[in-house]
Amino acid sequence: MFHAYAASSADSLFEPFEYDPGELGPDEVDVQVEYCGICHSDLSMKQNDWGITSFPFVGGHEVAGRVAAIGERVAGLEVGQRVGVGWTSQSCLRCNECLSGYQNRCPDAQGTIVGRHGGFADRVRAQAEWCLPIPDGVASVDCGPLFCGGLTVFNPLAENAVPPTGRVGVVGIGGLGHMALQFARAWGCEVTAFSTSPEKEDEARQMGAHRFLNSRDASALQSAAGRFDMVLVTVNAALDWDAYVNTLRPGGTLHLVGAAEKIEATVFPMIMGQKSISASPTGSIVRATEMLEFCARHEIKPMVEQFPMSRLNDAMDHLASGQPRYRIVLTAGE
Amino acid sequence: MFHAYAASSADSLFEPFEYDPGELGPDEVDVQVEYCGICHSDLSMKQNDWGITSFPFVGGHEVAGRVAAIGERVAGLEVGQRVGVGWTSQSCLRCNECLSGYQNRCPDAQGTIVGRHGGFADRVRAQAEWCLPIPDGVASVDCGPLFCGGLTVFNPLAENAVPPTGRVGVVGIGGLGHMALQFARAWGCEVTAFSTSPEKEDEARQMGAHRFLNSRDASALQSAAGRFDMVLVTVNAALDWDAYVNTLRPGGTLHLVGAAEKIEATVFPMIMGQKSISASPTGSIVRATEMLEFCARHEIKPMVEQFPMSRLNDAMDHLASGQPRYRIVLTAGE
Repeated sequence: MFHAYAASSADSLFEPFEYDPGELGPDEVDVQVEYCGICHSDLSMKQNDWGITSFPFVGGHEVAGRVAAIGERVAGLEVGQRVGVGWTSQSCLRCNECLSGYQNRCPDAQGTIVGRHGGFADRVRAQAEWCLPIPDGVASVDCGPLFCGGLTVFNPLAENAVPPTGRVGVVGIGGLGHMALQFARAWGCEVTAFSTSPEKEDEARQMGAHRFLNSRDASALQSAAGRFDMVLVTVNAALDWDAYVNTLRPGGTLHLVGAAEKIEATVFPMIMGQKSISASPTGSIVRATEMLEFCARHEIKPMVEQFPMSRLNDAMDHLASGQPRYRIVLTAGE
Repeated sequence: MFHAYAASSADSLFEPFEYDPGELGPDEVDVQVEYCGICHSDLSMKQNDWGITSFPFVGGHEVAGRVAAIGERVAGLEVGQRVGVGWTSQSCLRCNECLSGYQNRCPDAQGTIVGRHGGFADRVRAQAEWCLPIPDGVASVDCGPLFCGGLTVFNPLAENAVPPTGRVGVVGIGGLGHMALQFARAWGCEVTAFSTSPEKEDEARQMGAHRFLNSRDASALQSAAGRFDMVLVTVNAALDWDAYVNTLRPGGTLHLVGAAEKIEATVFPMIMGQKSISASPTGSIVRATEMLEFCARHEIKPMVEQFPMSRLNDAMDHLASGQPRYRIVLTAGE
């Protein structure tokens, strides 16, 4: 039996919950959860904001732990080895997306907390390929948030081929944005933080920002006109999209990873400046591996607040308040 | 003196108009106009739709002709040589955009009909670099429309690195779209025409379309879900943007060259499918040269209706009616 915390409805608290995961499949791995980050999408899923939640709902898709059991066909992983599991737990590995290296875009991919039980538990089960070895130099306590939030903001630098000579803006200095600042800085870029919270400036600079702009100040946005190769939007709010498109240099892209409902932009400036609006979901298996190596080499890690997993409900309240600095990690067994 | 046709106001007809272009600059060329295409933007400019028109207004920015006079510093062009002039007549050649190979994005670029007098005339003046030699195998009578409309739809295939193995949709089979079909076909792609005019199907297939879909038919759009690497929007109308985003395969882009006012799209499907909305203006000097070579090699030419330049007003009425099949070309001296 796996011992988890589940919510029985959108309005319920998480309560202890046991379930039988069934027989371990030949291509699967059971992971002993040591730490599990909380992502804003855990809250959205609990609230069934996207209409895809099954109850009882066990959240948690930023797992760092150790291999506890391996299926008979699994190669390359050993019991006891440190691994992480993120948003995706399984993909078909055979469709065109998977075969093209985009397992994160597999139409049959299974989310760790979508129709499955996630990492708010002592164990979680995933396809072996999505159990990503954690390299030396990356601490388990720090790395859970890399597997979802980190990968989500690392991926656009690679997918958009942002050059290290380029200039990157990061909109929203929170759970995702504070990792994006570190990635973009280590990528070699000039980095600008956009935040509605002026009190975050010092920390943003410590995390890699060369410049800090108050995103509530229209003149600050105007001062950055024509500046960026990529502006990475990590918030899921309705923004003044035209004002951000205006901060792009010719050929630049406004890249969305925060799921705002709609984007509305004036076309003429996009045409004249050859500007684009792009978007992406998490990242592929190989991209995640590259990210982990990059984190080890550049000593990149999320800034986390730890809660014992037994205080999951308090941690969710803290997340909902918008106050975490900057990512919450639960410690299993406490 | 240059002998042109000018409109004295947004509501005026074009009337014969003489002007003194002044002394030929050392880096400039005078082109004897033989043919000049009419672009929808000639109509928009005449009507001052964009608020940037100077009157008297001489339109015409799809010129095919011959070098009539060259400035003292001009190298590589000879009097009598066949050349074309498109949307841009001059750029600084020294800013970052110009030095990066994007003279079409130069902030100081001068449009042939923006604050200058265009090709509805016996002669037009342009910077030597923007007087593009017409290669053998490309007939002057056919090639005027390539220099604006053609370049505008050729450029996205190159700028978006569309692979010849890819699938391309073209929305709007008119002045731009009918050239886009030919380019995409010769590029090696599978080509789909989207049109509101079912009677254009046969011609669209002749011009390169493998498939023809009625863009007023929601089920036809739905049948193309997940299909295209690039959907090129050549119309300047408000579309059901989400329906077109839905026709993109993962990683695909909806590329705009028609200046619709606003684009509004739902973000979540863009994120999940790593889809983007991009845009671009005409093309650079080298891109135009590549396009002309490509046209010569693949025998690509616009389908044109000829009018004597003296019947310019009739030709403009014909354009405004939306009836041209597919591009109007004026013959100078007639």
